[in-house]
Amino acid sequence: MATTLPDNASLEQDLVVAQAAVTKQGDTVRSLKASLKEKKADKAQVEAAIEQLKNLKASLDLKQKEFQSASGKTSSTNREAFRDAVKTVLERRLFYIPSFEIYGSVAGFYDYGPPGCALKQNFTQFWRQHFVLEESMLEVECPAVTPEVVLKASGHVDRFTDLMVTDVVTGDCHRADHLLEAALQALLDGKPKPLDTQERQAVHHLLATVEELNVKQLGDALEQYGVKAPETNNDISRPFPFNLMFKTSIGPRGDQVGYLRPETAQGIFVNFRHLLYSNGGKLPFAAAQIGQSFRNEISPRAGLLRVREFTQAEIEHFCNPDAKDHPKFQSIAREQPLLFSRALQMSEEKQPQAMQLGDAVSQSIIANQTLAYFIGRTYLFLLRVGINPKRLRFRQHLANEMAHYAEDCWDAEVECSYGWVECVGLADRSAYDLRAHATKSKTDMSAYEPFPDGSRMVDVLVAAVDKREEKKKLTGRNFVPSVIEPSFGVGRIIYCMFEHCYATRKGDEKRSLFHFKPIVAPVKATVFPLFAQPTFIDQAQAVAALLTAAGLSTIVDSTGASIGKRYARTDEIGVPFAVTVDHQTLEDSTVTVRDRDSTTQVRVPIAEVQALLTELVKGRTWESMQQQYPTHASAADDN
Amino acid sequence: MATTLPDNASLEQDLVVAQAAVTKQGDTVRSLKASLKEKKADKAQVEAAIEQLKNLKASLDLKQKEFQSASGKTSSTNREAFRDAVKTVLERRLFYIPSFEIYGSVAGFYDYGPPGCALKQNFTQFWRQHFVLEESMLEVECPAVTPEVVLKASGHVDRFTDLMVTDVVTGDCHRADHLLEAALQALLDGKPKPLDTQERQAVHHLLATVEELNVKQLGDALEQYGVKAPETNNDISRPFPFNLMFKTSIGPRGDQVGYLRPETAQGIFVNFRHLLYSNGGKLPFAAAQIGQSFRNEISPRAGLLRVREFTQAEIEHFCNPDAKDHPKFQSIAREQPLLFSRALQMSEEKQPQAMQLGDAVSQSIIANQTLAYFIGRTYLFLLRVGINPKRLRFRQHLANEMAHYAEDCWDAEVECSYGWVECVGLADRSAYDLRAHATKSKTDMSAYEPFPDGSRMVDVLVAAVDKREEKKKLTGRNFVPSVIEPSFGVGRIIYCMFEHCYATRKGDEKRSLFHFKPIVAPVKATVFPLFAQPTFIDQAQAVAALLTAAGLSTIVDSTGASIGKRYARTDEIGVPFAVTVDHQTLEDSTVTVRDRDSTTQVRVPIAEVQALLTELVKGRTWESMQQQYPTHASAADDN
Repeated sequence: MATTLPDNASLEQDLVVAQAAVTKQGDTVRSLKASLKEKKADKAQVEAAIEQLKNLKASLDLKQKEFQSASGKTSSTNREAFRDAVKTVLERRLFYIPSFEIYGSVAGFYDYGPPGCALKQNFTQFWRQHFVLEESMLEVECPAVTPEVVLKASGHVDRFTDLMVTDVVTGDCHRADHLLEAALQALLDGKPKPLDTQERQAVHHLLATVEELNVKQLGDALEQYGVKAPETNNDISRPFPFNLMFKTSIGPRGDQVGYLRPETAQGIFVNFRHLLYSNGGKLPFAAAQIGQSFRNEISPRAGLLRVREFTQAEIEHFCNPDAKDHPKFQSIAREQPLLFSRALQMSEEKQPQAMQLGDAVSQSIIANQTLAYFIGRTYLFLLRVGINPKRLRFRQHLANEMAHYAEDCWDAEVECSYGWVECVGLADRSAYDLRAHATKSKTDMSAYEPFPDGSRMVDVLVAAVDKREEKKKLTGRNFVPSVIEPSFGVGRIIYCMFEHCYATRKGDEKRSLFHFKPIVAPVKATVFPLFAQPTFIDQAQAVAALLTAAGLSTIVDSTGASIGKRYARTDEIGVPFAVTVDHQTLEDSTVTVRDRDSTTQVRVPIAEVQALLTELVKGRTWESMQQQYPTHASAADDN
Repeated sequence: MATTLPDNASLEQDLVVAQAAVTKQGDTVRSLKASLKEKKADKAQVEAAIEQLKNLKASLDLKQKEFQSASGKTSSTNREAFRDAVKTVLERRLFYIPSFEIYGSVAGFYDYGPPGCALKQNFTQFWRQHFVLEESMLEVECPAVTPEVVLKASGHVDRFTDLMVTDVVTGDCHRADHLLEAALQALLDGKPKPLDTQERQAVHHLLATVEELNVKQLGDALEQYGVKAPETNNDISRPFPFNLMFKTSIGPRGDQVGYLRPETAQGIFVNFRHLLYSNGGKLPFAAAQIGQSFRNEISPRAGLLRVREFTQAEIEHFCNPDAKDHPKFQSIAREQPLLFSRALQMSEEKQPQAMQLGDAVSQSIIANQTLAYFIGRTYLFLLRVGINPKRLRFRQHLANEMAHYAEDCWDAEVECSYGWVECVGLADRSAYDLRAHATKSKTDMSAYEPFPDGSRMVDVLVAAVDKREEKKKLTGRNFVPSVIEPSFGVGRIIYCMFEHCYATRKGDEKRSLFHFKPIVAPVKATVFPLFAQPTFIDQAQAVAALLTAAGLSTIVDSTGASIGKRYARTDEIGVPFAVTVDHQTLEDSTVTVRDRDSTTQVRVPIAEVQALLTELVKGRTWESMQQQYPTHASAADDN
């Protein structure tokens, strides 16, 4: 049997080659199409190239099925095929673009193109509404360039490092842990030869604990398994720490070291006293910041998930360490996200469980109400922007993952083609950050609160020399507040949202679409004149102007393409609603409104279309529209 | 006479000292108030400090009047007094905060505190609505970290410099032109001794042309006038160019130089081909970007006006160099901003004139319709965010100010206490930027357009060797598009807006307020329970929740202070509307709504208050509210 089937590794190799050929041919077709517009290529060339692309895709499809039946897995390669399909649309429609492409790009930097940028704007505005406005947070905006002393206090100058090895011949840099993991994984996959049971166990154990190795242990392990540099197969250096912050110099003298902030949080901490003052000296309160952060990753891969410049949205909730209940806790206590607690991670099944947040707190699974409240609000937020709740879990940090000062930490992890991705970190960081800055800056970072039960007698040291103590009446106390920090990776959530919203039309796998929620969709409505004639076009422009004036991003597609083709184009960037100006419009001033997801249509007076689309974007259901307005049976081909 | 009056310089000196004393005492009062909250100071201390502050202010006031009557000018010192008054409120209410203050701050970096951050968000969102949405622009977001090659192509690596001199003893750095200007100004002011007419003329001429001096001429002039380092009076070095970009290193190898972008525009230029493709290959179109830019200023002063990290909003409008008419030009042709053309700047009066933009184009004062269209849209935008049109002028660059490739440039300049400040630059940059990147990256940056009058016969070189030419029929042509660039300095406009919106209540100079336009106001409404009792507070919270749900930023002030005092607090951060829950609310579910500017009130049903405030924020006039709802005669003291 073994001889009649090629081995999986070689099949996998074939697949990668076939995939690369499809990608390359796709690029060719795209560039030919552009040339056609500029009359530098002719139609026959383009058609030939498309024909070849079809053949390559068919061949790829065959290879995928072959691999699947041979290996029995719907594994990484299928996930990669899905990822490539999404990526193709995202790049073609310019949701994102590798930065500085005309100069060959730089790893880890991406631009958001027009629809990506619009979607990201909608995303952050909705974040502001959901968190800053609805929770009355104090939002601040601080610089990215940060003097060394701030990041010395926070610990980033000394400890914000990854362990790196270099190729001793080429000088290329690699993350030491990634190389070890890849080598161990290869061993488990039977390369270069199958392991015996004992070896297997040892490798398994090491793989599970790579993140806990110190620099010496990691170096020893790399040596023990003879790990070489990827691609070149050269020897590698011993691992050494590399600081991930971009360094710069502030001012012209060259003597003031600065860094690009690795997180936005520090800007909030250094302003704590101002913010406390602005809140009338009272706790609790939360401050928030949305802005760019920077990490000079050693060798960034994984597309939009690991980049060197990215947008964070961070909240720092300051509270009395003895009062972590939350007044609005009941509003989320019955939400049931998938929780992957420490206990469940250590269990046999290793499966997260849906659990009411109220129960999770009363059973002491989540440390306190405030942390659980933010888990609940984060859960609701992620669902509202289009994350699939079945592919979202809150995973608690194991004891060895948490910093010594942390009380409890949970990550919102979202499943996508890269596996489970940490998208939001929610941590009770105790008073660590404020204490660190208080010490370094010699600033008082304490807050004052009266005792809830009135004044009390306390022993107070009144004379240091003879250590004499006296009873004294105090009405309250000073303390350094605890910080509970929800920290959102905006780009990661958006990327996962892209994957969760991607689909193809039933029965037509070539017609892809994004089921973006209207609130985040980059364009809210496309207006179509049914025919490319002035009367229709003028009317369409007038309707679009109405929608734009209401703040609804709108495009007009007045190309001569069939209405079905135009629907497909607008579906592909996830426009939730389409408004068509047809013959009847000219008679009775009504238009049709089409819902992207159901492809059903209703007929609506122009005078009402602005208010209705505003409501739909804010969350009104399509079903309620269908009850209010007559259904329009489409004459146009929507497939 | 001269002996009975102290000379103006000494009076001015007194004023500065008095001003500093007021500022210092203001800080003392603030810190004592904070200590009072934490029971570290007592009430008597605070009251004594306030009393002293009042005395110092009275003394300052007297000195200001003395100076004004002696000098006859409402000069720099009065402008500085005004600036200090605005600054005091801005800093006390945390509109902005010097960054990293607990570590002693770093010149040129500011945080936006809660109201400043909210206002800036509203500002940029309105900019998006006014430009991106209403003009169907393609918005992108590109990284701040930029590889050297991009900024080499744009010219920034070689030419983005200021001339610097160093103090030969301390090594302190100064801008060479600023030192020369200050020295020449001192000479004109008669220090150390009055100049004769000829000397005066020479100094005047040099002062007017400082910006045009090259490095040698500037060095010679500094030597000629014996300019020393400020404060130390030490000798200074010859001037040398200092590049204003923050430098960093990308990736772990240390061999890839990067800079923090000095402008957002380059991110758009390098994406030109993608954007053209996304626009169906057609011109004209505009792309936009809002984001952080960075300039490592030599010695930043002038507060928020000259900072090292700032937000830009830039538009690049790409068009056929032979087709710079604009289809929507008529919509702004009758707007009449103050234009300060080249001719007017060279005239005797040197005064700008209000002129219809249509006339400015037909008289060839503004180079083309598209540039004039953006001047008109910018004018409307600035008015809508609260810039005073009488203190706004569009100044044309003189021939010697423009780059050789530029066709025409105008700056929107706004007058504030620092003088006329460049807030928006509007430039027709021809094809310079795209050509530079085409050359450096060897990428085709041309667009194609069919001839409007159909095909034509053109001489085409068919064989390079024998230079043989043939007639050939072409239907269109390829060309590198022109770029018209409106570039907004967001922080500068916001600072000028602060000054233009600042005022004190008639008859009570201690009650300051900001007349922010509702669209940009950081908080749209404050809700007041008339008394700090649960029934009132609960009802106020419910009204606030309604407003927040509609996206209207709302605060509830349920402190026990008098309603007059609470109005004053909310006026001070420019909240345009106040909603009060009073006894009548509990009976008939109506509230009073107060207009900040007129201090008049109307009575409105709670059920309508959400929709009404939404309309008011969008631009509905207060007068129309007064016609719709009954006036509420206030029983509370509003003064």
